[in-house]
Amino acid sequence: MITAGIVGGTGYTGVELLRLLAGHPDVELSVITSRGNAGTAVSELFPNLRGVIDIAFSEPDGDVLGACDVVFFATPNGTAMKMAPALLERGCRVIDLGADFRIRDLSVWSRWYGMEHACPEIASEAVYGLPERNRAAIREARLVANPGCYPTSVQLGFMPLIERHLVDLDNLVADAKSGVSGAGRQPKQHTLLGEAAENFHAYGAGGHRHLPEIREGLSESAGRSVGLTFVPHLVPMIRGIHATLYGRLVDTDVDLQALYEARYRDEPFVDVLPPGSHPETRTVRGSNICRIAVHRPADSATALVLAVEDNLVKGAAGQAVQNMNLMCGLEETAGLAHTPVLP
Amino acid sequence: MITAGIVGGTGYTGVELLRLLAGHPDVELSVITSRGNAGTAVSELFPNLRGVIDIAFSEPDGDVLGACDVVFFATPNGTAMKMAPALLERGCRVIDLGADFRIRDLSVWSRWYGMEHACPEIASEAVYGLPERNRAAIREARLVANPGCYPTSVQLGFMPLIERHLVDLDNLVADAKSGVSGAGRQPKQHTLLGEAAENFHAYGAGGHRHLPEIREGLSESAGRSVGLTFVPHLVPMIRGIHATLYGRLVDTDVDLQALYEARYRDEPFVDVLPPGSHPETRTVRGSNICRIAVHRPADSATALVLAVEDNLVKGAAGQAVQNMNLMCGLEETAGLAHTPVLP
Amino acid sequence: MITAGIVGGTGYTGVELLRLLAGHPDVELSVITSRGNAGTAVSELFPNLRGVIDIAFSEPDGDVLGACDVVFFATPNGTAMKMAPALLERGCRVIDLGADFRIRDLSVWSRWYGMEHACPEIASEAVYGLPERNRAAIREARLVANPGCYPTSVQLGFMPLIERHLVDLDNLVADAKSGVSGAGRQPKQHTLLGEAAENFHAYGAGGHRHLPEIREGLSESAGRSVGLTFVPHLVPMIRGIHATLYGRLVDTDVDLQALYEARYRDEPFVDVLPPGSHPETRTVRGSNICRIAVHRPADSATALVLAVEDNLVKGAAGQAVQNMNLMCGLEETAGLAHTPVLP
Amino acid sequence: MITAGIVGGTGYTGVELLRLLAGHPDVELSVITSRGNAGTAVSELFPNLRGVIDIAFSEPDGDVLGACDVVFFATPNGTAMKMAPALLERGCRVIDLGADFRIRDLSVWSRWYGMEHACPEIASEAVYGLPERNRAAIREARLVANPGCYPTSVQLGFMPLIERHLVDLDNLVADAKSGVSGAGRQPKQHTLLGEAAENFHAYGAGGHRHLPEIREGLSESAGRSVGLTFVPHLVPMIRGIHATLYGRLVDTDVDLQALYEARYRDEPFVDVLPPGSHPETRTVRGSNICRIAVHRPADSATALVLAVEDNLVKGAAGQAVQNMNLMCGLEETAGLAHTPVLP
Repeated sequence: MITAGIVGGTGYTGVELLRLLAGHPDVELSVITSRGNAGTAVSELFPNLRGVIDIAFSEPDGDVLGACDVVFFATPNGTAMKMAPALLERGCRVIDLGADFRIRDLSVWSRWYGMEHACPEIASEAVYGLPERNRAAIREARLVANPGCYPTSVQLGFMPLIERHLVDLDNLVADAKSGVSGAGRQPKQHTLLGEAAENFHAYGAGGHRHLPEIREGLSESAGRSVGLTFVPHLVPMIRGIHATLYGRLVDTDVDLQALYEARYRDEPFVDVLPPGSHPETRTVRGSNICRIAVHRPADSATALVLAVEDNLVKGAAGQAVQNMNLMCGLEETAGLAHTPVLP
Repeated sequence: MITAGIVGGTGYTGVELLRLLAGHPDVELSVITSRGNAGTAVSELFPNLRGVIDIAFSEPDGDVLGACDVVFFATPNGTAMKMAPALLERGCRVIDLGADFRIRDLSVWSRWYGMEHACPEIASEAVYGLPERNRAAIREARLVANPGCYPTSVQLGFMPLIERHLVDLDNLVADAKSGVSGAGRQPKQHTLLGEAAENFHAYGAGGHRHLPEIREGLSESAGRSVGLTFVPHLVPMIRGIHATLYGRLVDTDVDLQALYEARYRDEPFVDVLPPGSHPETRTVRGSNICRIAVHRPADSATALVLAVEDNLVKGAAGQAVQNMNLMCGLEETAGLAHTPVLP
Repeated sequence: MITAGIVGGTGYTGVELLRLLAGHPDVELSVITSRGNAGTAVSELFPNLRGVIDIAFSEPDGDVLGACDVVFFATPNGTAMKMAPALLERGCRVIDLGADFRIRDLSVWSRWYGMEHACPEIASEAVYGLPERNRAAIREARLVANPGCYPTSVQLGFMPLIERHLVDLDNLVADAKSGVSGAGRQPKQHTLLGEAAENFHAYGAGGHRHLPEIREGLSESAGRSVGLTFVPHLVPMIRGIHATLYGRLVDTDVDLQALYEARYRDEPFVDVLPPGSHPETRTVRGSNICRIAVHRPADSATALVLAVEDNLVKGAAGQAVQNMNLMCGLEETAGLAHTPVLP
Repeated sequence: MITAGIVGGTGYTGVELLRLLAGHPDVELSVITSRGNAGTAVSELFPNLRGVIDIAFSEPDGDVLGACDVVFFATPNGTAMKMAPALLERGCRVIDLGADFRIRDLSVWSRWYGMEHACPEIASEAVYGLPERNRAAIREARLVANPGCYPTSVQLGFMPLIERHLVDLDNLVADAKSGVSGAGRQPKQHTLLGEAAENFHAYGAGGHRHLPEIREGLSESAGRSVGLTFVPHLVPMIRGIHATLYGRLVDTDVDLQALYEARYRDEPFVDVLPPGSHPETRTVRGSNICRIAVHRPADSATALVLAVEDNLVKGAAGQAVQNMNLMCGLEETAGLAHTPVLP
């Protein structure tokens, strides 16, 4: 039995981690911290967990956290980098669901996140937690940077094309759409139901923090730097990301369907749909699966990829559990066999 | 291992039964029939079940169904009563998720459902499948009438008051609200997103089919006939029922909170919330739990009960599995431990 | 041409007032104040008003406001009572869309709103702005208390029954449902789309601020004090209130349909639907109309009333404009002829 | 006063036409036909129009329609082409909101719509009703093909770039998103709230009927044939289209903002937003305005255009009224000054 701790578990990724860990056969949740809600029972804040989780939020305490086998950070950016070094020192494995360790180039990181990095030497050993690319390294890692929600779907969608240089790598387009839970549980005006329902719009067209992360990841897959236009949009729904990806084929003879099926044949959480499919976000709701369809629109030299994931599961907490499983020598799929609820 | 069959599994209660049975540790789903979709893989129609269920829909076949330990009917009203007798003959247990066996008084049934009953002699032995009232009888039953969605929440909400005659039994009010999945998966104009979203209205104020069922059930709990005004409303959401129940207290000294807690102390699927609570439908989404809060508004002699359930689970497929567990001697909660996904 | 000012126009009632006044043939909007947004163009905050309103928010200034014929307060409770006296002094007419002048009994007001009243002498002259009851007094008023959103629909729904004592006045039940815009544009957790979508629940069962207002209004209609249970619910939609009202008939011979049609025959903004109707909130969206259906459920002595309004129009800004029209001697319906957009 | 008739007014474009014509100062609606609903009052089917429109649906009658100055077809594809010739013969002007006259190349039309064209000689005189490109011709036209909803937003968004060959014309990408009202009011499974809410997906990736229409329109703007990848998506909301358009700049020195402002300076229904904007679909709901923002993402040679419209107004009924105004010598903006309702 692995013991796990969560730092900052009152946001949407936090409550999702709670749900997943509560049902994990090999994990015991020892502690969950929240400065603002210390002393409150988890099930009071999240009544869906009544009878499922009976611990309360507590103040963060280095000794208590340090006694865990693995500690998850579901905190605002800038927190994990301050607390991780001491926990690693004590022998904990650390998985950061925030952005502190996602970008290898720390000058890029500082530019986008507006602060100096607190532990550059630790950052350099962090492994980017996308198992479909970095499985072996994750198995050996002490510190994993869990990918962002958009970056997971965009990278999984583009990887087969990028790795083999089948598309024009200088002009990739990722048109991405997310439910509002991606904006978090902190009250903000633009995610009020009164503002976001019956409405649709793009945002961050001038530059979004996930852009450098995706670009770095795709460049790593390509073995060279890539050019990408990334436009995120807000969808009037709670969960789900849909990435619509466009690349100009440089080799128009390739069998795209066969390529994707071969690339992901052994991946437990990537499902390549039959030819002609249009994946729906609801078919992965609450599950760790990313479903992908690949198309080649008639009369064009464009590869079109449609990828869906649950932004809070494969795009956050589920992928974190998958990484934990790998880091701790558990079955990779343990605790992650949720059937999406439909309708 | 129990073998189970489903007749008519392409509606919302059908796909929910599929999800629940696929995850049940003691059940093997042998067959699922659909005239319209025979030959189609279940996972083609419901991609959320890819990798979870690998059988296809088939034409209904008495021999195949008759070989099952238990057969569920998720069919339009009027189907189960024609097929059930032969299946019972063969030794199957039968659970009807439709309305064919819900009302004891068949003249009332015929009036509301607009047809003659096909097997009155069988109907008389059917047990009304509300375990919180009829657990012992369900254990012995060959044929269970699974309650309607509204009737489940209204009865669970009123029962503690009714059984002890604590409210004016002639003037009960049940103001109920349901998500649109209760209206089924058949295309209808009024449940199009373009009609039902950003909209709220009552319906059936002149009389709804669940009214006689609820009245009969409450009368049974009371040991005398009751008077009830029942008004259902359509909520612009997919799942969930919220019943707001009003009764005039005849005994104003009773401790309502204690009453409810005592009545449901041993019920695995009824959760009485702390005083002052307002249950939310999302906290039971995808789960078999009914959460209840009881209030006594200031300066009034009114008992106010708020009850929520997932109309497709405790209001349909989940309760059917609970009944199956009881009928087949399995653990009552087997296969029903789903943590609601929130948000 | 009337000149109008708005104090505090950045909330939902404010922007709705802006829309209505911008299209009013007899009104010129002179000034709109907002401390937080002074200097910002109205159309920058509300791009739906681009090309429609070209003024900017400004700091509140007594001279500028005092020069207006009429000043609307769309401010948090407690603001209007501080500023109204000086404006009345200068000869302005004042319409408060907040709650400062809604309750005649100021001790009750203080209890529910948690503050001392700032101008009791002025409060006593305020007219409650429900034209269907107080039209003549509104015409003469300097200061109008615009009713709350729930109170408008509940009172219009109950009035014909109450005025003639046709129902048990001690046991009225009002089960009300509102879209989330009623909770305002200030970011709050429970009205985030991630919390309020796909969810339904009651709130304020222990007591809501609109309860004393409704009770006082109904008591005035009845000429005696009434007993009321009022339970509001949050609907996952933006606009609209649906009040479902229950009263026990003391006279069961009355023709309810004829009663309602007669009572509202000359009312321009109350539409009594044909027998058997179920009004939908979307049929009044963006308009000042309240649609009402009255039912008598079979075998019962209950009068059931279904009333819908747009909470931001007839429940707030539209009724305020209607009151302004009356106070200023304009056509009562001027500027209020909006056809609801459907779907 | 112009007299107008509508053929087939029970769908969403029909009811929207009704709303717009009812408020038009220079038009009298003489007749609205519907085979299925002949004899039913318009306001019975659409209660939002109670007190606004008091005629009933009638059987189509050539004499009655032929007496109108202008006849709108809001019918399924294939109807207008059968009835239009006789109406033109009688001197009516005809505006088809369907697709019968949208595509100049009738062999392309037949391939996509699966039928032979019924009046090729008439089709050749039809004018494509996009005033921003064809204003002069529309003024002279007897027969106008009202553009599709997607084609309107995509063409308005791309036109300034295309007309001046500023982007790579062989590799345009249009990623478009629409509310479900675009799929019509006929009951279909995939637009049920239970299917479409809390869900997002692409459709028609293998080819959508609006693709040839858009391609033909853009080619006309360019003066040469263009290459386009067009992917539509279904958004869980009622109204609104958002087109996200990508083009590779061939001239990277152009000032995109100035280009768009100049191109649309005199257009009453195209609103170019300030630099850095993200237009929201709700800001045009119920109005005939198309709002556009143009971006050039950092470090890229991509022109990114964001365009929003109400699919039922500028994308259908509103543009039809705009065309009628032009054809009949009325003020182009007459009857089209609706302020979008927000929130």
